[in-house]
Amino acid sequence: MAPSALADIYPIPARHYSKATIQASVLNGPRDLRLETRTISDPAPHELQIAIKATGVCGSDVSYYNKFRNGDLQAVAPLSLGHESAGVVVAVGEAVTGFQIGERVALEVGVPCDNCRSCQRGRYNLCPGMRFRSSAKSVPHFQGTLQERINHPAKWCHKIPSHVSMDAAALLEPLSVAIHATRRASIEQGDTAIVYGAGTVGLLVAAMAKMSGATTVMIADIDSGRVDYAVRQGFATKGYVVATRRHLNETAEKLAAAKELASEIVDIACADEPDFEGADVTFDCTGKEICMQAGLYATRPGGKLIMVGMGTPIQTLPMSASHLKEVDIIGIFRYANTYPTGIKILSSGVLPSLDNMVTHRFKGLAAAKDAFELAGKTADKDGKLVLKVIVEN
Amino acid sequence: MAPSALADIYPIPARHYSKATIQASVLNGPRDLRLETRTISDPAPHELQIAIKATGVCGSDVSYYNKFRNGDLQAVAPLSLGHESAGVVVAVGEAVTGFQIGERVALEVGVPCDNCRSCQRGRYNLCPGMRFRSSAKSVPHFQGTLQERINHPAKWCHKIPSHVSMDAAALLEPLSVAIHATRRASIEQGDTAIVYGAGTVGLLVAAMAKMSGATTVMIADIDSGRVDYAVRQGFATKGYVVATRRHLNETAEKLAAAKELASEIVDIACADEPDFEGADVTFDCTGKEICMQAGLYATRPGGKLIMVGMGTPIQTLPMSASHLKEVDIIGIFRYANTYPTGIKILSSGVLPSLDNMVTHRFKGLAAAKDAFELAGKTADKDGKLVLKVIVEN
Amino acid sequence: MAPSALADIYPIPARHYSKATIQASVLNGPRDLRLETRTISDPAPHELQIAIKATGVCGSDVSYYNKFRNGDLQAVAPLSLGHESAGVVVAVGEAVTGFQIGERVALEVGVPCDNCRSCQRGRYNLCPGMRFRSSAKSVPHFQGTLQERINHPAKWCHKIPSHVSMDAAALLEPLSVAIHATRRASIEQGDTAIVYGAGTVGLLVAAMAKMSGATTVMIADIDSGRVDYAVRQGFATKGYVVATRRHLNETAEKLAAAKELASEIVDIACADEPDFEGADVTFDCTGKEICMQAGLYATRPGGKLIMVGMGTPIQTLPMSASHLKEVDIIGIFRYANTYPTGIKILSSGVLPSLDNMVTHRFKGLAAAKDAFELAGKTADKDGKLVLKVIVEN
Amino acid sequence: MAPSALADIYPIPARHYSKATIQASVLNGPRDLRLETRTISDPAPHELQIAIKATGVCGSDVSYYNKFRNGDLQAVAPLSLGHESAGVVVAVGEAVTGFQIGERVALEVGVPCDNCRSCQRGRYNLCPGMRFRSSAKSVPHFQGTLQERINHPAKWCHKIPSHVSMDAAALLEPLSVAIHATRRASIEQGDTAIVYGAGTVGLLVAAMAKMSGATTVMIADIDSGRVDYAVRQGFATKGYVVATRRHLNETAEKLAAAKELASEIVDIACADEPDFEGADVTFDCTGKEICMQAGLYATRPGGKLIMVGMGTPIQTLPMSASHLKEVDIIGIFRYANTYPTGIKILSSGVLPSLDNMVTHRFKGLAAAKDAFELAGKTADKDGKLVLKVIVEN
Repeated sequence: MAPSALADIYPIPARHYSKATIQASVLNGPRDLRLETRTISDPAPHELQIAIKATGVCGSDVSYYNKFRNGDLQAVAPLSLGHESAGVVVAVGEAVTGFQIGERVALEVGVPCDNCRSCQRGRYNLCPGMRFRSSAKSVPHFQGTLQERINHPAKWCHKIPSHVSMDAAALLEPLSVAIHATRRASIEQGDTAIVYGAGTVGLLVAAMAKMSGATTVMIADIDSGRVDYAVRQGFATKGYVVATRRHLNETAEKLAAAKELASEIVDIACADEPDFEGADVTFDCTGKEICMQAGLYATRPGGKLIMVGMGTPIQTLPMSASHLKEVDIIGIFRYANTYPTGIKILSSGVLPSLDNMVTHRFKGLAAAKDAFELAGKTADKDGKLVLKVIVEN
Repeated sequence: MAPSALADIYPIPARHYSKATIQASVLNGPRDLRLETRTISDPAPHELQIAIKATGVCGSDVSYYNKFRNGDLQAVAPLSLGHESAGVVVAVGEAVTGFQIGERVALEVGVPCDNCRSCQRGRYNLCPGMRFRSSAKSVPHFQGTLQERINHPAKWCHKIPSHVSMDAAALLEPLSVAIHATRRASIEQGDTAIVYGAGTVGLLVAAMAKMSGATTVMIADIDSGRVDYAVRQGFATKGYVVATRRHLNETAEKLAAAKELASEIVDIACADEPDFEGADVTFDCTGKEICMQAGLYATRPGGKLIMVGMGTPIQTLPMSASHLKEVDIIGIFRYANTYPTGIKILSSGVLPSLDNMVTHRFKGLAAAKDAFELAGKTADKDGKLVLKVIVEN
Repeated sequence: MAPSALADIYPIPARHYSKATIQASVLNGPRDLRLETRTISDPAPHELQIAIKATGVCGSDVSYYNKFRNGDLQAVAPLSLGHESAGVVVAVGEAVTGFQIGERVALEVGVPCDNCRSCQRGRYNLCPGMRFRSSAKSVPHFQGTLQERINHPAKWCHKIPSHVSMDAAALLEPLSVAIHATRRASIEQGDTAIVYGAGTVGLLVAAMAKMSGATTVMIADIDSGRVDYAVRQGFATKGYVVATRRHLNETAEKLAAAKELASEIVDIACADEPDFEGADVTFDCTGKEICMQAGLYATRPGGKLIMVGMGTPIQTLPMSASHLKEVDIIGIFRYANTYPTGIKILSSGVLPSLDNMVTHRFKGLAAAKDAFELAGKTADKDGKLVLKVIVEN
Repeated sequence: MAPSALADIYPIPARHYSKATIQASVLNGPRDLRLETRTISDPAPHELQIAIKATGVCGSDVSYYNKFRNGDLQAVAPLSLGHESAGVVVAVGEAVTGFQIGERVALEVGVPCDNCRSCQRGRYNLCPGMRFRSSAKSVPHFQGTLQERINHPAKWCHKIPSHVSMDAAALLEPLSVAIHATRRASIEQGDTAIVYGAGTVGLLVAAMAKMSGATTVMIADIDSGRVDYAVRQGFATKGYVVATRRHLNETAEKLAAAKELASEIVDIACADEPDFEGADVTFDCTGKEICMQAGLYATRPGGKLIMVGMGTPIQTLPMSASHLKEVDIIGIFRYANTYPTGIKILSSGVLPSLDNMVTHRFKGLAAAKDAFELAGKTADKDGKLVLKVIVEN
């Protein structure tokens, strides 16, 4: 949208936007989501004010929606959800340079302290003082993007080219996780990768592994619709539908099941490679202990197991595999320095279409509740695959 | 070709092949190439005997053909040329395991000592004791593959899948250079790469940069046919035809021309990237001093300049660019541990077709002379582009 | 010892050593160690024959001695123990170059296949076909060095300078583990390292961390004698005696104890660093699950936990620490390409004295039984600290 | 100095310091240095006001002093020199946390933009918008530290422990160069390093190479006093006094001289290493073309040549050495993220004494002129070695 076109919609002077009321979708307790009116101040000197256009719904949002908590994090005050977001600049803080009203931006919603040792090392995702929108970790909570407009530091707004859609720009957030995960995996040309989990992050991790040089990318999930989608759309080169395991109690039984799971997948991955030694890199995007266990079995000597999804905080693992095979276990927490890279990648068109990944779009903040209800499912009421659900303002 | 089919052609017992006479194309002096009859012994215990099926002609072969020397290396005895080769196993040394007669293999023609510090470090391309086929470096010269059959260490023979052609398998050699160059460049996702030179190696370097995650790959050459081919066939994302420079004498003039060359290319590479800082990685595949100079100017702060082609042994370079921008200069000499990777990549089909790169095929060793005459040109007598010339046995 | 002096002791021609009988210390079952007479052939073409001069006793030797097994590996035939060894060349295989009778060498006792993917990658410690002396893994067992003389591939014999003692040369084996562990840890200048376990390997890991640039190296052990030794002799900069924990059953209790252990150590490590975030690198050289757990708690965001000692094959770990802090878990299995480095280091004198680490020396193979009885203890009958026990021939 | 003690000297409230006049040493043209009175404002919200206690004199300062320019950079306005500095906090900006009046700090005098791609990558030394004190690059010039007090961003002030002297803290600046250079060199355990140039930076590079695991560190200089000092004080393990070469004109002669220089040094470095292949890492800290040329000859296959000193902007180099041996050429420009590391290192006492490196101290800003006159020399009028000259306030 050109600034001139925008001027009709947001008839505002370049550096000033009068205090105003906005609509916000606010969670007040488990499943207690309300559309409220909030006031918004002018952007601070280093901030932009952004009219949010698209917000993707993530698993952690669904968790807050249902339980008012996510893992260990209990919300203690009203919380706007949403952290996969893009929008349009509608006001520019007085100290900001390089941005104009009307420019389209993706929001990097985690704001680090910029001063600690992790920030200095360029690993700002590990900053202890990080404030992350829609998370209950910092108090007062740093509000999410399911609002009409928000003020956000210009440093953490990233311009997107005109041919990238707002929906795709919102998906830069999960794409960032995938970029960070595959960077830390140091994919090499010709690598074989296994990806456990074919949700949004699993799909994007698979696609990033492929574009980084992996020639065999095997994706596994319990949902056949997702596996089909992954292979058909070119996210992965091979797929495997994992049979649901019966619940096991004993560690030995669990490890036997994990070993079986590993060997099934390895058999497929290596169909045409007689001296296959195991995956060069395995990504767990499920957070399930059995997938981490299977990953240790399925990875080749000297390979890497990347823990992308967090689910089970305490895991019982066959560490002798890590020891005897020197399989490195690499944990992934969000991302750092990924947005500029992600924008170049989206812009270049090398990935399968991210717009196509958005299976369900809800118009307006009032529809957020419906979005949350749907986003936890793998299929909608018509049996259609649910991948990414987006709320469009 | 299945072993059974082969048995008709090479009716020989599994581990023994009787001493025999073979035909060999032998260079005896400048442009003095003759078809000769040589005797070949049984393969030694750790060797295979290979019936050569395809040999690509490389620039160094053409140099030997014309001058009986290549750079500093003067041939001192008759020399079979050819080092980009693939063939079929026709006899198996008694200590060899894992190979059968009839299997198709690519030959890695450099045989390192396996015992020096460089070999131990896994950088066997730097082994001082390396013997490399068709090179005059070791005396007696290690003969090239333009022969009917040769004995070669099984360790340096690499099986190729049935769906990869002999011609493509021969091109694993220049592909290895490209793999090694892009590995040493540590391409990152979303990188912008510039490649100077659109010959075989330049094209393959560009393609490997793309498949390793670079999203903009700019190729530059003085020959418009090559540039067109590179972009049309998907080796690079953008191309640039470099105007031939008049010969310059003074360093200052040369550097000014190099700076101009750099800025022309950067202008194109960054057309849609307003805050472009220069290439993340620049590859010189020409061996020309001006391209190394331009590379130092065209590469972004913290980027890398990869010296793939060797031409000018002593170069006058604007080292302040390397110093002030911390542009690392990385030399490339052949390759190490690339063949298994190259085979996975060829097998996967992610690269543009290598068979298509073979613009001219000559049948039989007797046609080698014609092949050498053509291979130094950029177009044949019909004006058709000359890229890779192959001699097929 | 100069070759001439040696000639008196081993009066043999340069390349030939007549078949002969030797003495060997052989384990025939649990604690059933006997001195036997074996015959030894001439060295094969690529082998040296070595008169063993010193063999260190390792924990795995003690395990075989007591149980005729080590972890999962059950001995199935008589087995000579010993794999930390040095000696003198007494015969040279006919294809060997670069070695002379009388030269002093350390033996690298793991012989990899030299042909598999791990070998090609330079990570030959992960070679599935590795034969390792004194281990029951390969059948027939690859005999250890507690023999008068053995034939060993020249490629895996490393010359040692005259000023390095035979005892120190034998300790190149555990030093190799420490080199490999600290290399994989990528120690950076000014790092803070924690080392759990102050046995031979723990001490050497601490010393290697220090010489690689770590400025704070904290060592922890339950034995105060070892901790004192470590700090007094300069292996570590700080020490901590860990109180023995009562046996715990529940995971939650175990993790609480591990967290307590971590915080005790961190308190000491950071005494003078107010904004201490945790160790940059933590090495577990004990193989105890509690130390791995404590390691995950004690390591800073973005740090590394190195699993050097293997003990508990299945471990229950607080993986959320690895996930949220991106603490990489790096397994260590033996070593690769460490001997030349170790020899340079020993020769340079930068480490604390390795000779001094040898607290007990036993003369002659007949004394091996006494050596094994002592080596499992932390103090001898006089209460003197036991660190490294060596059998000298 | 405790805050209370300081209170007597700077009797000021915690967060406010009244506008005041200060003394400053200001350069107005070649050798035209004057002591002037300037006014200083209160520190801005994110700044500290520092009373400068020690400033080291660097080669670039001497160049400005003599020529009012440094390389290509011409001063266009009065310029205070000095960028190796430490002092005491005397006022704290209102937005600053974590600092108190009286704390001792080292100043990192390069202030990057914090917003560009290089800054985001953690390589802020390459920031195009960097303002660096005492340099004429940014206009108006960013004034150096030879002033009584200055305001400086708190983010770029680093607290120093009480047992580190102000002089040593000032030397954190050249130490930072050495940390950055040795980091980029990826020193490995047991490496052999050659360092050309035994001035402040060369000495510190040598010492950092040693503490990072290099076991042989060879330093070379034309001044025997510096070489003696380097070896005697433990900065390097070996030294070599380079004979002054007569001036050569032809490239071939120059390269022959460089090859000779390389072989002399290699002979000494490898005295006790028969199979020496060349240095693992060579550092040029002289900026002389001949040393870069010699470095390419003296470095082993697969080694690195680090260009620390910048002198000759256009260099004629034997690039075939880089190509055939894969010697990487790595440029160094200042440093990034080095101060916290440097402080840990200084605090630990592992380096040779930096206080001892300060051979000449001048008291008071009025003595700056004498300091500049001396700092360009290698010996004072009494023949005593000149290494680091410091102006103490």
